[in-house]
Amino acid sequence: MKGRFQKAEFPVEKVRCYLEPGPIVLVSSALGEERNIMTMGWHTVMEFTPSLVGCVIAESNHSFRLIRESGECVINLPTRALLDEVVGIGNTTGAEVDKFATFGLTPEESRVVNAPSILECCACFECRLADDSLVRKYNFFVFEVVYARAARRPKHPETLHYTGNGVFMVSGKILSRRAKFRPELLD
Amino acid sequence: MKGRFQKAEFPVEKVRCYLEPGPIVLVSSALGEERNIMTMGWHTVMEFTPSLVGCVIAESNHSFRLIRESGECVINLPTRALLDEVVGIGNTTGAEVDKFATFGLTPEESRVVNAPSILECCACFECRLADDSLVRKYNFFVFEVVYARAARRPKHPETLHYTGNGVFMVSGKILSRRAKFRPELLD
Repeated sequence: MKGRFQKAEFPVEKVRCYLEPGPIVLVSSALGEERNIMTMGWHTVMEFTPSLVGCVIAESNHSFRLIRESGECVINLPTRALLDEVVGIGNTTGAEVDKFATFGLTPEESRVVNAPSILECCACFECRLADDSLVRKYNFFVFEVVYARAARRPKHPETLHYTGNGVFMVSGKILSRRAKFRPELLD
Repeated sequence: MKGRFQKAEFPVEKVRCYLEPGPIVLVSSALGEERNIMTMGWHTVMEFTPSLVGCVIAESNHSFRLIRESGECVINLPTRALLDEVVGIGNTTGAEVDKFATFGLTPEESRVVNAPSILECCACFECRLADDSLVRKYNFFVFEVVYARAARRPKHPETLHYTGNGVFMVSGKILSRRAKFRPELLD
């Protein structure tokens, strides 16, 4: 069942704790009256401060133009409860359907950007396009996370990780090795 | 216990099945007599053909110069059995220790590049530096996977996913939604 997550402000320099493990994410965007959501799996954290995330958004995606022209998007973190929505969004196009309405997701006002956030996701990272120098060659966008919100619980949400070919891996056990880390590598 | 994986050739255009879920990886490199291994978590698939992977390798890493000057590396996939090695490698520097010797890992000859592969890893992706235009600004390297090998079993290895702060997530259950995908999105 889809939850609706109450989210609190979260430090932008720590979004790696959600994004570095490689979850599939839902990217929401808006341009004028248009809005859209896409499923995205090709992303990486690039820097803590400023909080940079790089990702590939193929030009064939309906979201490409919305994101490039508005210079904004929200990276939303879905949990396992949204698996069917993640799959549905990835297998339809915003040129034909309103993804929010079709998949029963609720747009909520973002705090800093104009693109909507998704109420049913457990964390929302509001992004501004920081560097488009690799967009032409690789469809690679560098975003700055300018505002982040995350549900306080669960601390480690059950995320989805795509392996290709229609198959997902669900996040598993948490193992701490804090005691073996150099202090300067810990938060 | 550390296994030693027999690996077979694997199609380079399919490395996303291992890398897209976001595992921590071990990057091995060599330059002249020097060799090194680093732990790396900031990476993303960028293209199927050519098989491109982008990643951040901070200039402070001993491996930075070896990789940049040789223009090569191997991205090796460790499993849960190598957790302590992953942590140890990430918390020491190749300027002071031989990581292969210190952590009991076996360098094996790669097929195409000069950098060694790691016998105890279940997949090895041999890479050539394809684009260094974002290295100065972001320490962001674009590699082409020129040759890949992977163990046939397990099909979905138990990978490690870093969440920051000394804490790892282990890969969990596999869920297929193949039946809900458009055929052109499947392998």
